[in-house]
Amino acid sequence: MADPTPGDAGRYSYDGLDRVLHEKARLGILTALVARRDGIAFTELARLCSLTDGNLSRHLDVLAKAEPPLVDIHKGFDRRRPLTTCRITPSGRRRFREYLTQLEQVLRDAAVEEDAGTEKGKARPGLAGA
Amino acid sequence: MADPTPGDAGRYSYDGLDRVLHEKARLGILTALVARRDGIAFTELARLCSLTDGNLSRHLDVLAKAEPPLVDIHKGFDRRRPLTTCRITPSGRRRFREYLTQLEQVLRDAAVEEDAGTEKGKARPGLAGA
Repeated sequence: MADPTPGDAGRYSYDGLDRVLHEKARLGILTALVARRDGIAFTELARLCSLTDGNLSRHLDVLAKAEPPLVDIHKGFDRRRPLTTCRITPSGRRRFREYLTQLEQVLRDAAVEEDAGTEKGKARPGLAGA
Repeated sequence: MADPTPGDAGRYSYDGLDRVLHEKARLGILTALVARRDGIAFTELARLCSLTDGNLSRHLDVLAKAEPPLVDIHKGFDRRRPLTTCRITPSGRRRFREYLTQLEQVLRDAAVEEDAGTEKGKARPGLAGA
């Protein structure tokens, strides 16, 4: 067995990666909302994220019920027709930014590990396809 | 309703983000394996990823049953004691690299959208907290 280095237990656990955001649909929703502080109409958001109305509702529900809420859903009217508007909250914006910082860490780790793997591969070519 | 731009439907759907990898535990497992072409012992991998044996088994199962398999599990012996070794496959390495390229795209989108949101926020400060 390889020698265990006591200090690096949990090194790849990525605890900082937010479970609520680490779903590609929700990542897309927040990326779309982050640019539009005045909100996006539900139907436009569904189109931008290629989600059905039902799926978008389900994901917005998770984001709106987070504590504190990451999105704010406003049901209003536009010339007597119902209009639902979705908006990111200040907390949503902050958690999104923290999540991006964590993703950057994942990319840095991966780059370092890939370099290490390539070095090892070069040193022991016979093992690469074993 | 905001004017829909026909060309950007699905712009935030992130279809390229691999469902099998987009789970923070599996992301951690592959990041750990990518550096060690000769494999990592199961118990060491569990420790590095802060996963219980049961959880690690479950995630490895998903990765090993992907088509083509992303990891290879070898059950052998080390001085008569059972030793399970986990290794990333060439396909796993390729899909991991493609996944990282997609994550980089998410980060670029987010940076662009955040800049746009900040501009808008400055132009209409009254709406930021509304």
